[in-house]
Amino acid sequence: MPKIVNHEERREQIAEAMWRVILEKGMEGATVRNIAGEAGLSTGALRHYFKDQDELLVYAMRLVNERVEKRALKILQEGLPPKEKVIRVLLEIVPVDEERRAEMDVWFTFQAHIRHRKDLEGAPGHALRGAVSKLLGFLTYEEVLREDLDIGLEAERLYSIIDGLALHAFLEPERLEAGKVEMLIRDSVGRICR
Amino acid sequence: MPKIVNHEERREQIAEAMWRVILEKGMEGATVRNIAGEAGLSTGALRHYFKDQDELLVYAMRLVNERVEKRALKILQEGLPPKEKVIRVLLEIVPVDEERRAEMDVWFTFQAHIRHRKDLEGAPGHALRGAVSKLLGFLTYEEVLREDLDIGLEAERLYSIIDGLALHAFLEPERLEAGKVEMLIRDSVGRICR
Repeated sequence: MPKIVNHEERREQIAEAMWRVILEKGMEGATVRNIAGEAGLSTGALRHYFKDQDELLVYAMRLVNERVEKRALKILQEGLPPKEKVIRVLLEIVPVDEERRAEMDVWFTFQAHIRHRKDLEGAPGHALRGAVSKLLGFLTYEEVLREDLDIGLEAERLYSIIDGLALHAFLEPERLEAGKVEMLIRDSVGRICR
Repeated sequence: MPKIVNHEERREQIAEAMWRVILEKGMEGATVRNIAGEAGLSTGALRHYFKDQDELLVYAMRLVNERVEKRALKILQEGLPPKEKVIRVLLEIVPVDEERRAEMDVWFTFQAHIRHRKDLEGAPGHALRGAVSKLLGFLTYEEVLREDLDIGLEAERLYSIIDGLALHAFLEPERLEAGKVEMLIRDSVGRICR
């Protein structure tokens, strides 16, 4: 009996196939034919789930954001001190292992592509800035954040550090070790907390 | 009488034409035909200066680095206090005006492209990390850097902040104002100086 896969599961599988194609061949190689092949589908069957490459592209980008968000929410529900929760959430974003590295690689490739695709509708923006602001709001609410800070400036700094680290892990995967990333994130969060 | 343009000047003009094509159409649009058209040359004439698109690509990437380096060296020779010199050099890298924005746009587009071009030889790496280390060395030499710092950690942090800001100016050109960028760079350099 064939495995029953519902519509949404199949869409996720196709998006994941697109990620793999992008990781191996870049956006130039992310044709409907290649993605269908990677997903083990005919191009006709793929079109049953996504009407064109753009619809799939937007869906696959949203899926990256959703997965990161889901992991973050899970951490926030754990029984950890507020500062530790914030550090762990930030470590979810910076690619310190293979899965996160692949996500970031796909995400940067998408971003570079959509810069020149003003016609593309519904592409998700960069969710990290809002997330960092919320995390600082959470630290304020928990009375852990230092009171003498310019919060706007600190949010911008933390946002830059996280994305700078993510970019470096993307550009120099061999150089930037997970331990170094964690040390810098711990230190940077530590100095804005009491 | 036609203007006399030497070989190297012509190569720079062609590389600048490539930048403009990339800014408008992305890497997908950066064909030899489009670049030759933008430079006002035939494709045959262009091939007199670059044997193929890859040779031009590597040259155009190197030219971005060289221009930034030249501006940095000029600042270091000015009669400014060491801390101010370092701040001004870092402000040269983050895109706070149209020229620097275009450079950064081209640079990120190149980087996203070459990730999937393992066959491409001679592409320049990311020069910023070495530059930040040198700037911290300069502050140490001038006895301006605080002595209680983990210099490796601070170099990694400053490197991340600068590239994070550069990435955000690339992704969100409307949001990130030059004033905010400068404030964050001044503050981040200020806190590692005496």
